[in-house]
Amino acid sequence: MSFQLYRSPSTRRQVRAVLFDTFGTVVDWRTGVAREVAAFAAAHAHTLDAEAFADHWRALYQPAMEAIRSGKRSFTKLDTLHRENLDEALRQHGIEPAPVPRETLEELNKSWHRLPAWPDSVEGLAAIRRHYIVGPLSNGNTSLLLDMARNAGLPWDVIIGSDMTGTYKPLPQAYLRTTEFLDLEPGEVMLAAAHNNDLRAAREAGLGTAFIARPTEHGPGQSADLAPQGDWDLVASSITELAELLGA
Amino acid sequence: MSFQLYRSPSTRRQVRAVLFDTFGTVVDWRTGVAREVAAFAAAHAHTLDAEAFADHWRALYQPAMEAIRSGKRSFTKLDTLHRENLDEALRQHGIEPAPVPRETLEELNKSWHRLPAWPDSVEGLAAIRRHYIVGPLSNGNTSLLLDMARNAGLPWDVIIGSDMTGTYKPLPQAYLRTTEFLDLEPGEVMLAAAHNNDLRAAREAGLGTAFIARPTEHGPGQSADLAPQGDWDLVASSITELAELLGA
Repeated sequence: MSFQLYRSPSTRRQVRAVLFDTFGTVVDWRTGVAREVAAFAAAHAHTLDAEAFADHWRALYQPAMEAIRSGKRSFTKLDTLHRENLDEALRQHGIEPAPVPRETLEELNKSWHRLPAWPDSVEGLAAIRRHYIVGPLSNGNTSLLLDMARNAGLPWDVIIGSDMTGTYKPLPQAYLRTTEFLDLEPGEVMLAAAHNNDLRAAREAGLGTAFIARPTEHGPGQSADLAPQGDWDLVASSITELAELLGA
Repeated sequence: MSFQLYRSPSTRRQVRAVLFDTFGTVVDWRTGVAREVAAFAAAHAHTLDAEAFADHWRALYQPAMEAIRSGKRSFTKLDTLHRENLDEALRQHGIEPAPVPRETLEELNKSWHRLPAWPDSVEGLAAIRRHYIVGPLSNGNTSLLLDMARNAGLPWDVIIGSDMTGTYKPLPQAYLRTTEFLDLEPGEVMLAAAHNNDLRAAREAGLGTAFIARPTEHGPGQSADLAPQGDWDLVASSITELAELLGA
């Protein structure tokens, strides 16, 4: 076979696995969450701006993980953080969560398990998988990522959830423990992500890097991560384009 | 959809995930290892009974894990145990391992990553996967199980290696930590295995159980595990038959 594995300039090693940030890079969390929030609002006669609600719910994500990254709180899986943040987001929108049936809120919380893939994701991952190991490298927990994969048809080879590494990106151990489970050197693994800060941390940990532009992740007014802000090994506008750049 | 998830009589819960013992149940370790041992012997001008060598190498598997299960040794991944046991098996067959190139032994050790599936495995797993989560529940480490899946085309949804649970079957935590990563109750998970002792431990941990007969796992003279030795929820002669029994 004449196929050559991609050699990352930043690591000078052949890439064996291409791992993907998921929320925003592989799946469209804003559309998926807003859709389920709108259905919840309609079913319970609440007036809600579903997109704004999705943005507010998502805005509580980094602060919740920061308590864990800083050591103030022991590791807690993302499903639990999302559930806590849902209560907070409801209060921000004038809805007291306590009277809402517990099962309803659990189900709404699982909207993060049912996010739709970007149109190019499944085809691009399938192409890359022919020559490289593919998997998520996400702050999602295993069961969330598994449900997401089954619902959206994401053809992962392996799922290493943050509950397996016991830590959250962008801490270095999130990347390094993942490469250890794969029995690969950091330089044999490439992170593909729509977020420059994720790629910066991955490169510091020794991984190869690929930026995938997702200019509508945060809706029409997005101002951050519109372009690569680093000398990343590869830059693509979709996962199918990344597959071409990888020769896959 | 009229499809009903299987309800395990022993747990009275709907099964959501069917997990498989791998060595012997999904893949034919004896044939796979013997084939690579024979190639190694031919390349290095050794006279070896390849099947007997595979049996001896495998016989060192349980004692090596027992040192870890009993607490005498801290958790060590199966690739490392296999590599240590390879040296011992070579000595048993009159071959001193030290002069053999290290890369050659590492490569032979990876024969466990390249085991062939039984003829019914891929089709049966694909059928079950349409309605249930499928994955290994094996003492193999993640990278071994991942390579095995890619080489044999095993369509797992998720791989939870023993290096993720940090323990070895049949200790209860091996089963229970796996169900925790899946965010499922033990009774929502079924273990399918060709080994009665594995099923006994799985049932004690609360899992559903399916026996799959593999009467030639140990070659033509096999005397153990020829038939179910317990009131297992399901009994099948192949993974395709298990799929039928599960209604998948």
